[in-house]
Amino acid sequence: MSAPRTRKVRGDAQGRRPVYDAASLLAVAVAEFNTRGYDATSMEQLSRAAGITKSSFYHHVSGKEELLRAALSRALDGLFGILAEPAAKHGSALDRIRHIVRRQVEVLTGELPYVTLLLRVRGNTDTERWALSRRREFDAAIAALVSESVRDGQVRADVDPALAARLLSGTVNSVIEWYRPGRSGSGSLPDDVVRAVSEGILPNR
Amino acid sequence: MSAPRTRKVRGDAQGRRPVYDAASLLAVAVAEFNTRGYDATSMEQLSRAAGITKSSFYHHVSGKEELLRAALSRALDGLFGILAEPAAKHGSALDRIRHIVRRQVEVLTGELPYVTLLLRVRGNTDTERWALSRRREFDAAIAALVSESVRDGQVRADVDPALAARLLSGTVNSVIEWYRPGRSGSGSLPDDVVRAVSEGILPNR
Repeated sequence: MSAPRTRKVRGDAQGRRPVYDAASLLAVAVAEFNTRGYDATSMEQLSRAAGITKSSFYHHVSGKEELLRAALSRALDGLFGILAEPAAKHGSALDRIRHIVRRQVEVLTGELPYVTLLLRVRGNTDTERWALSRRREFDAAIAALVSESVRDGQVRADVDPALAARLLSGTVNSVIEWYRPGRSGSGSLPDDVVRAVSEGILPNR
Repeated sequence: MSAPRTRKVRGDAQGRRPVYDAASLLAVAVAEFNTRGYDATSMEQLSRAAGITKSSFYHHVSGKEELLRAALSRALDGLFGILAEPAAKHGSALDRIRHIVRRQVEVLTGELPYVTLLLRVRGNTDTERWALSRRREFDAAIAALVSESVRDGQVRADVDPALAARLLSGTVNSVIEWYRPGRSGSGSLPDDVVRAVSEGILPNR
């Protein structure tokens, strides 16, 4: 599933089976992985959830690890895409971090199931270890910017950059725990999170 | 395993098996659940990890759900114990929140594997749903204090209490993602987290 396939799984003659393409099979698989955990999910359960036979499922993918890799790639591509944006590359370190945090919240909420899966990866398979190392790479890019913002004197000097980078990532990523699409008032969420990390979640009046 | 048992599993005559009591079996089980996920862990794997036979293991516990409940209870007792402390019950809402956050970090780091398991619970079994409802109860207590601190005028009025409570819990709980016991400089972590939520993770200089 490294290159997207567009061929569809047609329903049977009576139209009893749902019509799926590779992207919708991926969405079904990600939902199952998030509910049950990747390790505990079998191809049997995936095909049942998709409403197709196991052999039809294998017609599309070589196994569940291929689905995992496709899902994690989608999340990682979204996150790394942010780092390539002009506002993440030019300007003061603090402005760049704020841009990245704002966009991270947008990617997290826009690609919720995929990022949720990414953030729950444990490292039991090669694919999971690959995803963990990509996550570390992303976190290291942020940590470098945090250090730079402290060195620049933009951020208060008594802030420990390593701890700040970890809390930053923890605060931003925690959005997946409760965010649900369509929640009212969530349009301002990216800016609200930027403000919380800059001024405090509970700023004194 | 609701009441701790102290009887030990003795090694065999040649002393080849490790000596375990119920508390150490629980620790072994929690480590396995955290590595592999609760759903994907079998009693077979638990006994292998403990280095005892499956039947010896069943001599101590009725099954893995009993271990899960004991582990989650330990984490929940730690967290709810905080709410019963005098500093969590008396004083201004903001001071009470700060006390709770500081102590939450202490409980998270002191009971790391148990709290990690609690925070990863998905709700696939009765025990997990019970733990999730206890977590919601804990979060609701914090959310009520956050609302009170905004009403009091201690926290800036443009803060949305519901969002602030969620980000607060997300920031604090994220510590489990990277904290490892014995890390140098972690003595100040509880206060560092309190400061980050009050003044910002990246406060302007």
